[in-house]
Amino acid sequence: MSTVPSPEPTPVVAPNGEPDTALAARLPELREEYAALQARGLKLDLTRGKPSAEQLDLAEPLLGLPGEGVHTDDSGTDVRNYGGLDGLPQLRRIFAELLGVPVEQLLAQGNASLTLMYDTVVQALLFGVPGGERPWSREEQVTFVCPVPGYDRHFAICEELGIRMVTVPMTPDGPDAEAVAALVADDPTIKGMWVVPTYANPDGSVVSEAVARRLVSMPTAAPDFRIFWDNAYAVHHLTEHETKSANAIDLAAEAGNPDRVLMYASTSKVSFAGSGVAFVASSPANVAWFRKHLAIRSIGPDKVNQLRHALFFRDADGVREHMRKHREILAPKFRAVVEILTERLGDASVATWNEPEGGYFVSVDVVPGTASRVVELAKAAGIALTPAGATFPYGKDPLDRNIRLAPSMPPLDEVRVAMDGVATCILLAAAEAAASS
Amino acid sequence: MSTVPSPEPTPVVAPNGEPDTALAARLPELREEYAALQARGLKLDLTRGKPSAEQLDLAEPLLGLPGEGVHTDDSGTDVRNYGGLDGLPQLRRIFAELLGVPVEQLLAQGNASLTLMYDTVVQALLFGVPGGERPWSREEQVTFVCPVPGYDRHFAICEELGIRMVTVPMTPDGPDAEAVAALVADDPTIKGMWVVPTYANPDGSVVSEAVARRLVSMPTAAPDFRIFWDNAYAVHHLTEHETKSANAIDLAAEAGNPDRVLMYASTSKVSFAGSGVAFVASSPANVAWFRKHLAIRSIGPDKVNQLRHALFFRDADGVREHMRKHREILAPKFRAVVEILTERLGDASVATWNEPEGGYFVSVDVVPGTASRVVELAKAAGIALTPAGATFPYGKDPLDRNIRLAPSMPPLDEVRVAMDGVATCILLAAAEAAASS
Repeated sequence: MSTVPSPEPTPVVAPNGEPDTALAARLPELREEYAALQARGLKLDLTRGKPSAEQLDLAEPLLGLPGEGVHTDDSGTDVRNYGGLDGLPQLRRIFAELLGVPVEQLLAQGNASLTLMYDTVVQALLFGVPGGERPWSREEQVTFVCPVPGYDRHFAICEELGIRMVTVPMTPDGPDAEAVAALVADDPTIKGMWVVPTYANPDGSVVSEAVARRLVSMPTAAPDFRIFWDNAYAVHHLTEHETKSANAIDLAAEAGNPDRVLMYASTSKVSFAGSGVAFVASSPANVAWFRKHLAIRSIGPDKVNQLRHALFFRDADGVREHMRKHREILAPKFRAVVEILTERLGDASVATWNEPEGGYFVSVDVVPGTASRVVELAKAAGIALTPAGATFPYGKDPLDRNIRLAPSMPPLDEVRVAMDGVATCILLAAAEAAASS
Repeated sequence: MSTVPSPEPTPVVAPNGEPDTALAARLPELREEYAALQARGLKLDLTRGKPSAEQLDLAEPLLGLPGEGVHTDDSGTDVRNYGGLDGLPQLRRIFAELLGVPVEQLLAQGNASLTLMYDTVVQALLFGVPGGERPWSREEQVTFVCPVPGYDRHFAICEELGIRMVTVPMTPDGPDAEAVAALVADDPTIKGMWVVPTYANPDGSVVSEAVARRLVSMPTAAPDFRIFWDNAYAVHHLTEHETKSANAIDLAAEAGNPDRVLMYASTSKVSFAGSGVAFVASSPANVAWFRKHLAIRSIGPDKVNQLRHALFFRDADGVREHMRKHREILAPKFRAVVEILTERLGDASVATWNEPEGGYFVSVDVVPGTASRVVELAKAAGIALTPAGATFPYGKDPLDRNIRLAPSMPPLDEVRVAMDGVATCILLAAAEAAASS
């Protein structure tokens, strides 16, 4: 992750520590600018990490595949019938290579890794995990470590299932590993942790090898602690530098904690967001455990869709090549976000942000206490942003300062217009705060 | 359901109540016949209700659908992207008509109704159901009523989730409703019941209107009792008489118990067994409850596959027409099963069976105590049958007499050969029992 070298957000005070009277003085001018923005009657949306129609078009041939008469995989299995619980070997081989895991330890399932994560946590609650003493639901308390800012749907799973969340800060190298280690060493209720290792949602950071080693080897009070390693953006590069995150499954085995890591991935942002294939990979013991319970609720995944994907991508290089086409569409939008933030806010000391090298988001920290106001101002000007607080458990950002921007969906010109408006809202909210302080 | 008018199985004794010496006397002759069967070196399989390749071929055009350039439904939604949690309205309308439920009360999801059933029970355990006082997992005991013989995967869900099973007998009109009513009236631990209303697995019975009314209106000690109405074979007719099972959701609402029934169905045995679309339907309150939790684990189902199905079937009549093509393939196989059983066993008083008008199975009751032996004999002669006991909870048939035959998968000539062999095994096992009694 590279970060714009702007100062830490202490912007309601000027560099001398006094209230930022210069910013406060800009309030009338910024109010006029905002009124002009409102008058444009925009209707723009930067809320969610959805691929654009142009990106979806890249996988259009999938809609005609496998084609009439093609219904066997490369081993001769009729993919139309029941069975094949682990998923199609032909497709699993491709993604095993991309994710750096043995094919035997990778299952290909339905259309959403979110569902696989949810189901894993439910299985742990109902049955316990290998190495655990009892089902997690029989513990008095189950706690997960949640790096923040993070992915709202991870937090929603915990909230739904009654799992307490404790937060640790993100760093440019992933979650603050020392903070995590300190928590898990003493608290046996901590059974799990969320990690988005590559191009994290929302701050774009990549877990370094050192952080990965620390997380998989740190002593934990709970014998059945699990890291939910959500590798959603493993191949979703925005630059020619195609970052590889640390191979947590291998590192965990080396560290003598082979069952600590469960890895998830999907083709949702590779092929079609709603009609892709999701994967889970882990140690042999964890995979056997997952499969055993899976066998009760499924006779097998949609193998036709898996064959469709295998035929379309052909091999791991086919996926890599395909992702470069995504990059060509996405990179200009992310560049526009960062350029406009830099142009409009670079000198104003009212925000910091990351310059992502992959993934789907830009994370912006605005003046503490003003994130909700920024989102509210943007909404009133016809620019929909992810609700402030969404990147924190229960939707509550204690400093009210983080905003997640998702520029993938709108066309480039709309991204520019929207971001210019967002910059105005950030400045206005900051000036309001300075004026009232 | 029509049943062959053979006597109840009391066959180790002759009609006069004495040991069946006539049958015992046939033992040497049957042993020779069995030796000849073994000598043929068969390799035949009647184990599972899988469609044959010929049936799967009927839906082959699905493999080229929707086709490049076709990625919007009839309302203009891009089916490739995220969203649409309830499933594609265009497809839900078709199956709402077929299942006789309002489209708003029908969700279209992934490739397996088994998964929807499992997930419903898990939700009930973790969160409780509308009208319930607490999550089922907080009850000291949860019990389901299981009509027997029944579907092994239903019982496996209960076993996996620690749900006690109590059995009631099946009748030609569905589960013995009075037996069910007596159980649920007094036992507040009984929270659920499995029903396959149309062409039940395995005995082919269809729930009559009277039985349906009794089940949806009977008083229950548990305020949150639910019937899992697994309408897996709703449109899977084997005769021109296309039976309609009672509309349990409507009847439950009429009876003042609108939330009692959860209905499931899928296209697994309509389009492709592994790549179909599954449905759940229920009262508005139950659907809202299911959707609320679904929203945490899914952003939406595979809408491309749902559009593919909608385009292929066009409308409800398209599905009905398609099922008649299945019937043309399946009906001769089922006729062969019944013909051979009648020819070989009709006079021998060693078995009873049903003559199904739909569905995927024939249920045979052999001489009590010999079902395992029949399956063992068949296996040793190269004919794989579903394990004896599979149609009972925990795989244990207390009378060891029920065998489930699944003739859909093998070609017709193999069905004939296999059934002739099965008849030999049934006779031999009965003669062995008579000789030793």
